[in-house]
Order: sequence, then C-alpha cells, then structure tokens
Amino acid sequence: MVFPETSLDLTGERFTVYYRLVAEDQQEARARAYGICLEQTVEVSAELLADDAIRAQVVGRIEHMAEIAPNRYEVAISYAVETTAFEFTQYLNVIFGNTAMQRGIRVLRLALPNSLLRHFKGPRFGQSGIRHLLDVFDRPLICTALKPMGLAANDLAELAYQMALGGIDIIKEDHGLTDQPFAPFTDRVGRCAEAIQRANRQSGYRCLYIPNITGPADKIVGRAYEAKRLGAGGLMIAPGLVGWDTLRMLANDDVLALPILCHPAWLGTYVLHPHQGVSHHVMFGQLPRLAGADATIFVNYGGRFPFTQDDCRDIERAVTMPLGELKQIFPIPSGGMDLARLRDMHEFYGTDVIFLIAGGLYAHGPDLLENARYFRKEVDSL
Amino acid sequence: MVFPETSLDLTGERFTVYYRLVAEDQQEARARAYGICLEQTVEVSAELLADDAIRAQVVGRIEHMAEIAPNRYEVAISYAVETTAFEFTQYLNVIFGNTAMQRGIRVLRLALPNSLLRHFKGPRFGQSGIRHLLDVFDRPLICTALKPMGLAANDLAELAYQMALGGIDIIKEDHGLTDQPFAPFTDRVGRCAEAIQRANRQSGYRCLYIPNITGPADKIVGRAYEAKRLGAGGLMIAPGLVGWDTLRMLANDDVLALPILCHPAWLGTYVLHPHQGVSHHVMFGQLPRLAGADATIFVNYGGRFPFTQDDCRDIERAVTMPLGELKQIFPIPSGGMDLARLRDMHEFYGTDVIFLIAGGLYAHGPDLLENARYFRKEVDSL
Repeated sequence: MVFPETSLDLTGERFTVYYRLVAEDQQEARARAYGICLEQTVEVSAELLADDAIRAQVVGRIEHMAEIAPNRYEVAISYAVETTAFEFTQYLNVIFGNTAMQRGIRVLRLALPNSLLRHFKGPRFGQSGIRHLLDVFDRPLICTALKPMGLAANDLAELAYQMALGGIDIIKEDHGLTDQPFAPFTDRVGRCAEAIQRANRQSGYRCLYIPNITGPADKIVGRAYEAKRLGAGGLMIAPGLVGWDTLRMLANDDVLALPILCHPAWLGTYVLHPHQGVSHHVMFGQLPRLAGADATIFVNYGGRFPFTQDDCRDIERAVTMPLGELKQIFPIPSGGMDLARLRDMHEFYGTDVIFLIAGGLYAHGPDLLENARYFRKEVDSL
Repeated sequence: MVFPETSLDLTGERFTVYYRLVAEDQQEARARAYGICLEQTVEVSAELLADDAIRAQVVGRIEHMAEIAPNRYEVAISYAVETTAFEFTQYLNVIFGNTAMQRGIRVLRLALPNSLLRHFKGPRFGQSGIRHLLDVFDRPLICTALKPMGLAANDLAELAYQMALGGIDIIKEDHGLTDQPFAPFTDRVGRCAEAIQRANRQSGYRCLYIPNITGPADKIVGRAYEAKRLGAGGLMIAPGLVGWDTLRMLANDDVLALPILCHPAWLGTYVLHPHQGVSHHVMFGQLPRLAGADATIFVNYGGRFPFTQDDCRDIERAVTMPLGELKQIFPIPSGGMDLARLRDMHEFYGTDVIFLIAGGLYAHGPDLLENARYFRKEVDSL
C-alpha cells in the first residue's frame, strides 16, 4: 500500500542537525544520510509515501554532505520545525531517537532558527545573572562540592560553613546526596542553607548553596520548592537521571526562579566513542543551554576522566557562542582537579568559568577553612 | 583533612552490580574496580575517609573479580541499599552515574535483594496481565505501529481501524507522534481510540490501542490521563526522552492502571560499544522491568539495526528470569521486520513474545486490512 496523500500547511521553517557518518564511499554515505532522514521522522521506507507534502516537508532533508576524512562524512540534515511539536522532548527525539541505535553516526552540533528557539526560553540567569547574584565580575568563580555520602546532615553543614566562610562562591552538593536515611533531604538542605547563610553574615560574602534535587519524578518539583523555602541559592539537576525536560521545566518556572546547575551523571557514554553517540559540544554544551541550565558541569582534561583539551574547548564554545537570544552559560570543568592546576585552567578557560574543585580542596591541608581561603586567594591573584 | 568520623545504623542489605572492565592486568583491574566503589558513592579518594562506617559500609565493595578473557575482567561490586535512598533515580545513579564517563567499563547485569526490590513495584500487568486483557493465551501477540508523522488524525484513525479489524492485537503509535500541529494529541488519540473500539465491536477482537505519551515533563501525566479518558488501552513511553522514573511513576499509578510499553529512543548509544556503556540485558531488559514496563521494545537481529541474536537473547532472558516477585514482561523485537520472518522469530523467541511489524505490514500488499489479516493468520498458524 501507499499512505493516503495529504497536504500540510507548514511554515517552511527548518532546524538543522549536523551528523558525522562512517561510510565506505559517497554512495553509502548518502544512503545512510537518507536513512536518518526517514528514521527520525516518518519511520517508513520512502516507497510507502505518496509524492506529497509528507515526503517533501516532513521527511528530513539532506542539505549538505562532505567527505571530511577517509570514510568520514559530515552531513547537515534539516527538519521542519513542526516535527518537534515545539517540545524539547520531541526535539531531542527528532535529532537522534532511533538513530542512537545505529553504529557510526554521531551528532556533532545543532542549529536552530528563531522560530524554534523562541519556544525554548533557555537560561534565566546565565553567566551575567550568576555574577550579579554573587557580585563578582572580574575573576573566575570558585565552587566546591559537599560530600561524602554517609555523613550526617549536621556534619555536612559544618563543612559547608567552613567552606563558605573561607570564600567559596558556590557550594553544590554531590549528585549522590538525595534523600538517604543518614542525611534526609529536608534536614540536610535546611541545615546546610542555614550554615552557609551564617557564614555569609560573618564574611560579607554571598556564597550560593546549590543542593542536588535530582530525585523521583513525583518528588523533584516538591524538592525544588522545598530547597528554595529552606534558603537554597540554586538547584543542581542531573538530566541523565531525570530527563532533560525536567531540567527545562524547572529552569522555566517563574515562581521558582533559581539558577540551575546541570550535572553529567549517566550522560558520559554518549560522548566516549568518537564515531557514535553525541559530541561533547552538544551533550555538555548545547543541550544544557537549550534546556535552560545556567552552568554545565563536565569533566576537565587531565583529571581522572578521559576528556581531552579539544573536548573541553568544544563544550566551552557551545556555552558561549551566539545561540539566538539565549544567554551565555558557565562551563564548570571538574573531576579530579587540584589547586595546583588553577593557573593552567585559567589560561585555558579565561575568566568566564566556574572552577569546581572538591577532592583537591579537602585534600589540600588539614584545616578546611584554610583550604578554602587558599583556593580563594589563588583565584583572586590570577 | 580527614572527614569527621561517623557511625551509621545500616541494615547490611546490599545490592550488586556486575561490571566488565578493560585492564592490562589483575592489579589495574582491582584499581579500576576500587575506583568505581569510590566514584559511585563517596566521590573522594579513600585517604580522606576516616576508618569508620562510611569506609566500611557506604563505599562500594568488591565482592568478586575474575579474568574472563585477556585484559577483560568481570567484577561484582555491592552497595548498601541505603545509598539508593530507595529511589529509582538514585539507584541508577549508584549503578553508573559518573562511571559512565570512563572508557572500558560496562554494566553487565543487576542483582537486587528483596529489601530493595520491594521499593520498586515493577510491572502491573506483565505477560499474564496483557494476555488476560487480550484474552489470547496460546500464541505470540501481534503488534503494529501507527504512522507516519505528517498524516492527519482522521487518516491515522482509518489506518488503525483497518489494522484492528484485521486482527492485530496491539496498535501502538510511532514514538515520533506527540502533539504536532498536523495531528494534535487529543484529536489523534480520540479518533484512533474510537476507530479501534468500532473495529473491536465489529470483529469481536480486543485490540489494544497504545498511544505515545512521551512529551514534556509538565504535560506527560496529563496526557496519560487524557489518553485513558479517550479510551487508550495502554501507554507508550520512551524513558530515554523523559527519564526512567517518569515511566516508573506512571506504571505505579493505581488510578491510571494501564499497561506500559517501553520504547528505546535515545538509549541505543549505551549498548553499541561492547566494552562501554550498559549491556542489552540491563538497558532493554532489567531496567524496563524494574521501572514497571509491561513490555519492552527493542530492535531485532537481522533488521536495519546492528543487534545480534546474542543481544536479543540477553534481553529476552532479562524479562523472563526470576527477579523477586516482579512479573515477567514481554519482549517486543522490532525494527525492519517483515512478515516472512515470523517463523524464524517464533523459533527464536517462542510463544511469549509480541511481534511488532509495521513497515513490513504496510508494505505487504495494496490492502491494509488484508495485510493485517495475513499477519494474524500467519501467527495463528505458527
């Protein structure tokens, strides 16, 4: 059979996804690319479609294809904006839904027209908003992580107090702290928020406390509001655990109106294989920004994870390059950094960056307050 | 510094994750395994921990390690059930959160004690529940997909009508149909549900209509209830787009109480590289079942995706092997199947399977009703 003919009244506005393909030759590359055009939209072979509006407008369209290395092709495929239903979940689906099951196809970068971008409000604060909250404009921001899992809430609060007093700008929680019996969410967030506010009153600093609200689908909104009520200065969310659109929903919440940190848990696999999955640029740069995160945590080169300088530059570009009216957001390189690497990181990232050092801060010396002061002094003197 | 000493009152109950590691030798394998034990829990190096309950009970524990091939090690790591906070999101996080960013580590399979399993209600219907809904007990079930994106709701409804009349057991929607302007959710689901009910009245069959409710975080619950109100017989959800816990939440909803189909969109990358990510067994078998899906869609061997017979067997085992009190769920092999492969698939999967054939059904002949009748007759005669 052939599907019934149909006419469509589409705007003609299209967004573009750039893929890299592995293929033996130009012909195979084109066949694979057209396979994506079908798979990501109509999910049937072209012979079943009438020669109508669906074939012409709904099926993805190969806009450009080039051999960029032996057996490697870059292809730009455009899709009608209407295929997304203007939903972030369905936008993600059109980009890579079923094609994620194919070998040798990688999503490299995303380009969106304003007709689609205006449906994604993006970051509420961005770099400038977070700088205003902290009243710090001329240096990298410094961040640490509250840990470890297993400590009681009052012990965590005491650590937070010392780090805030020492001049840390942002204290986020480990993404593994949720609602464990040894430090239940409300108890922990209440005590830590209070401790950091006390430190701020003493120091005159404006340290932001950012608890992890990653949690069950039927509890995460409640945790976000509870955190705000208890005095949190922002929220950390791992979209790999709760879905990208949950981050978007909370970032777009005008009553909540708190800065959002995006955590990379469960997302690593997408970037690890160079010819499959999703680029660092998209996964840790463009998607967090489009979803509305104000800062994106990823693992720095030279730490305990296998990201390279190129990978990190790829992310840094995605969070700062023009993207419609969407604000620039902060890159947060992390993962096994120590204080001795600050100069190198400053040279690489410049001033518009948040340095997240946790293990290296705790390990620096016997006194946590002094360690925090040292971190701050080092960054003040960059 | 060293973190303050603490005492914990844990039950001693632990769950186990089996990983496969790439390592040069036994010593490196052990170091990598212990790295996982720390990374997935306390996220600090062991020297910072006091010799206390956190080190002994919260840090993951290597229970078993064996070289299974040159430079390949299988390691069993156990974690205290309390680390999960008895949340599905945090359970996922402990399994693989940050470690997903490491090369050469793959999650192979999961083992859970009843103390953890009883927090995950699992499938409401499972194989037996879906068979009772359909009143079909002695043959594989047959399923097709409503498509393509771009067709108007009334055209989709007419296709659904013919396929239901022809004896298809389950008509699910393509996961790309959400709320596009050419077939808005409520209009589409209402018309298709009505068409299938009409066909059922004529045929005496009990065809189930399973719309796709994958969508924005702030709309998906509404869509689930709207679908039920309009006459849907189940719901399809892509957890790679909306988060696993959203599936769990809807599966656990006693008012909704509809069968759930799990769709693999965006999850493919996890399984593609044999030494990284997550096994087919876990990703398309154990996780859907633990989250509460009643059936799991994945791509069959020999179709347009690179899954092998071993991969599919790995999934089929996960959905049927004993897992506490959790019901067995249906495997739904799919992806470029045609009707000529039914005998082969029956030989491989046996009777307790749902055959999902869409493109191959539409393409079989010029008359969709006859195509559906043929599909049904072929399966009746297996």
